[in-house]
Amino acid sequence: MTVQKTSSGLYEDYKAKMRKVADVRNAMSVLGWDQETYLPEKGASFRGQQLTTLSSIAHELFSEDALGDILKELSSRSDLNAVQQKNVALSLEDYEKNRKYPAAFVAELSTATNAAYHAWIRARKENNFDVFEPLLANMVELKKQEAEILGYKGHPYDALLNEYEKGADVQMLDKIFSGVKESLLPILQKIALQEVPDKQFLHRHFPKDQQWQFGLNLLKDMGYDFKAGRQDISEHPFTTSFSPQDVRVTTRIDEQDLGNMTWSCIHEGGHALYEQGLPVEEYGLPSGEAASLGIHESQSRLWENNLGRSLTFWQYHYGNLQATFRSSLLAVPIQDFYRAINLVQPSLIRTEADELTYHFHVMIRYEIEKGLIGGTLQTKDLREIWNQYYREYLQQEVPDDLRGVLQDIHWSHGSFGYFPTYSLGSFYAAQLYTSAQKQVPGLENAIADGKYGPLLEWLRENIHQYGRFYTSNELCEKVTGEKLEFKYFLDYAKKKFGGIYQL
Amino acid sequence: MTVQKTSSGLYEDYKAKMRKVADVRNAMSVLGWDQETYLPEKGASFRGQQLTTLSSIAHELFSEDALGDILKELSSRSDLNAVQQKNVALSLEDYEKNRKYPAAFVAELSTATNAAYHAWIRARKENNFDVFEPLLANMVELKKQEAEILGYKGHPYDALLNEYEKGADVQMLDKIFSGVKESLLPILQKIALQEVPDKQFLHRHFPKDQQWQFGLNLLKDMGYDFKAGRQDISEHPFTTSFSPQDVRVTTRIDEQDLGNMTWSCIHEGGHALYEQGLPVEEYGLPSGEAASLGIHESQSRLWENNLGRSLTFWQYHYGNLQATFRSSLLAVPIQDFYRAINLVQPSLIRTEADELTYHFHVMIRYEIEKGLIGGTLQTKDLREIWNQYYREYLQQEVPDDLRGVLQDIHWSHGSFGYFPTYSLGSFYAAQLYTSAQKQVPGLENAIADGKYGPLLEWLRENIHQYGRFYTSNELCEKVTGEKLEFKYFLDYAKKKFGGIYQL
Repeated sequence: MTVQKTSSGLYEDYKAKMRKVADVRNAMSVLGWDQETYLPEKGASFRGQQLTTLSSIAHELFSEDALGDILKELSSRSDLNAVQQKNVALSLEDYEKNRKYPAAFVAELSTATNAAYHAWIRARKENNFDVFEPLLANMVELKKQEAEILGYKGHPYDALLNEYEKGADVQMLDKIFSGVKESLLPILQKIALQEVPDKQFLHRHFPKDQQWQFGLNLLKDMGYDFKAGRQDISEHPFTTSFSPQDVRVTTRIDEQDLGNMTWSCIHEGGHALYEQGLPVEEYGLPSGEAASLGIHESQSRLWENNLGRSLTFWQYHYGNLQATFRSSLLAVPIQDFYRAINLVQPSLIRTEADELTYHFHVMIRYEIEKGLIGGTLQTKDLREIWNQYYREYLQQEVPDDLRGVLQDIHWSHGSFGYFPTYSLGSFYAAQLYTSAQKQVPGLENAIADGKYGPLLEWLRENIHQYGRFYTSNELCEKVTGEKLEFKYFLDYAKKKFGGIYQL
Repeated sequence: MTVQKTSSGLYEDYKAKMRKVADVRNAMSVLGWDQETYLPEKGASFRGQQLTTLSSIAHELFSEDALGDILKELSSRSDLNAVQQKNVALSLEDYEKNRKYPAAFVAELSTATNAAYHAWIRARKENNFDVFEPLLANMVELKKQEAEILGYKGHPYDALLNEYEKGADVQMLDKIFSGVKESLLPILQKIALQEVPDKQFLHRHFPKDQQWQFGLNLLKDMGYDFKAGRQDISEHPFTTSFSPQDVRVTTRIDEQDLGNMTWSCIHEGGHALYEQGLPVEEYGLPSGEAASLGIHESQSRLWENNLGRSLTFWQYHYGNLQATFRSSLLAVPIQDFYRAINLVQPSLIRTEADELTYHFHVMIRYEIEKGLIGGTLQTKDLREIWNQYYREYLQQEVPDDLRGVLQDIHWSHGSFGYFPTYSLGSFYAAQLYTSAQKQVPGLENAIADGKYGPLLEWLRENIHQYGRFYTSNELCEKVTGEKLEFKYFLDYAKKKFGGIYQL
């Protein structure tokens, strides 16, 4: 039947099926958003069941034989345009990957994930990794199996990495992280010799309503479209998208910590601008999706750090911030503020780490995941390994599991291969921003005037509009002329922190 | 295959399939709730598409051959308990009704509804029924066809009525509404001769935050469980349920109108208490669903009117209300307040009508729907008929279509047969409440003390727990000893308004 149809007719069928899958997945995102923002306590159990049902429906729809037939037939047609061809190729790749998973394995993984998550919660309550360890061991075994199911050329961990960052592998990451070790460690050591800037004033009293309003204004200034999104409060800030026309962010507000809200707004705003910039007419298709987690993170971190922790950015906004929180900030000069928001200091908790030490947190997790999946590390030794790494790279004595090996949710979710995308995000951000600075005339002046239109336009044109058409590295090369190179981040770090700490 | 299974095994299969359908429908309710509360402007179009997709999935799941096979096999088994038997019988009835609709008809109806809705919006903008009329004519034609598809014994309108109120028919409603005409009209005529009580003080300034808090307190007092629900703001108040553990209400606040928020909270609270009282373990099955729209409305109106506009109720709450809105109410005696909130006065708009004249609004719509579906009325004459009825029964000259035939959304949605359930709700409420007053010892005293536990317990035990096990009339007879009788409402009205107006 598919053979007799015109390519454009078949492509429409493909689009309709993909949009149906997207509708179900986006409905799940709505339910997920509600779960984190407004769900009443007792609603959690049925909500979980409803999400499971939708997830299995999405899986069934995306595994339909009919979809496979259309995709295979379309792959053999020569009269599709480049975007159509790429969409079909990517969807077929996704489809075939999806079909590789035996139903029994999917069920086992789902049960194991549920058990591991609850064990992690329990282990955190008891502040004892041993409670989580056997479940984690089981999870690692399943993830090794998953790597075999998916297939890989070099290291089995490559298969898992590819789920989050297509094209990334151990070879690439080893190179990147040796850059981190070799070049960042000396900088950190020099900084450690300097006086620690004061940041106590960031922990004075910052009333909730004013913080909320200041955050909304930042988002508005960035170009976030409130007619195609909204901000709400949740325990952990996140961005979620139901279509490019409805991209929502959340934040949290701590009246004793201005930074919590401020940079979560800018960070999530960066994610959201990417989602709002994806092509509306490609809804449901790969070309309407983000390129990768690393590129997504590059957008949030470019806004949060390269822009949002720069002196130029705050030269425009600081007066307003002082006017909003007079009693807390009026006596604080901008230079002190700038040093405080860029304080570099090794610490125990990844999510609270500064721009530089952050990557050691990620590197440690990367080394551990690689070892676990490669079979050279065992979960039973994990506490010890973790604490050893923190001593070695961050000079931190880990006092307990809560502030150590139990701090992240990711492994309990079975997310192995996710952490590296955080660092890749920062490194892509530095490289992309360097290009933007070269390519956008008057960028620095615009930013000094609080105008981000030129930057956003550049991001839209060079990154957002392409969806998944290019892989991270293809995109990076197209925009910057090179594949990902750590040196751009290093240059950025040297310049910025060299200035702050007079290294 | 189904033949070899045990009945309990088969029943589990049935349950699993029904719960899957319920999960999808409840996901739709979450998306619908979000649409009315938090959806950003541009998100509407994709949201509509997502809802359509989920709706078609729910329809497919509920039309599966496999479900029909299980239901038919289970119907022939003799070893199910009474609840199981009833569930199977009701689901089979729903299933067969669902399968009666030809796919082409469903598509046509969906397109026509969409067109009619948008024409209604346009017609309202232009304040001109003629813009809506041709689309409405088409809708009526389709509804006549639907009546034929569904089948009926007496009047074709019976088939549509049954969609909202199983067992209701033209014969029953004619009798009820002749009661309205014969007995309520003389009361209204007597009231019209009395002095109109002052209600201007209800339109003084009532600050938003205090209204919001007062409404939340009312809900809490009623026994609404905030751990299994929440209140938000929407343009039109409504109740929606995602499971008995997550039943949400909305309200609206007008700072110039205390009544808007107050009785919408109590009304929606009544609906919500019903949904929160449905048996959790019967989720997805008929025994876990409300009996009918009429019974649902009986719950909201019992709380809103029989209780929430009674002197006893306000004798407890009025002090608090005065303390909350000192400048507006401190000088207003409770008797004046009580008369104001029970003011009877014919008007043009159904949703703003008082407890008595309301039923004339419904009767008019009932007569029109019956005529349209029966073929004795034509949409082209509708403006004239409408205005004529309002002159006859409510002594109102309709000044324009907005305040006339275009005021309700229902027909644009294709909801023919829905309006009568509003009046049935009031009449069931009066009859049920009369029984509660007889059966619950000390009910009046408890209410005077602001304690609604005994009433709620009685409703839970006599109504909520049964779900759809009984039809409205079966339930009414079981609880009150009689089928629905208009006289209970009449007695209530005579006593209450006779007192207020000294008739």
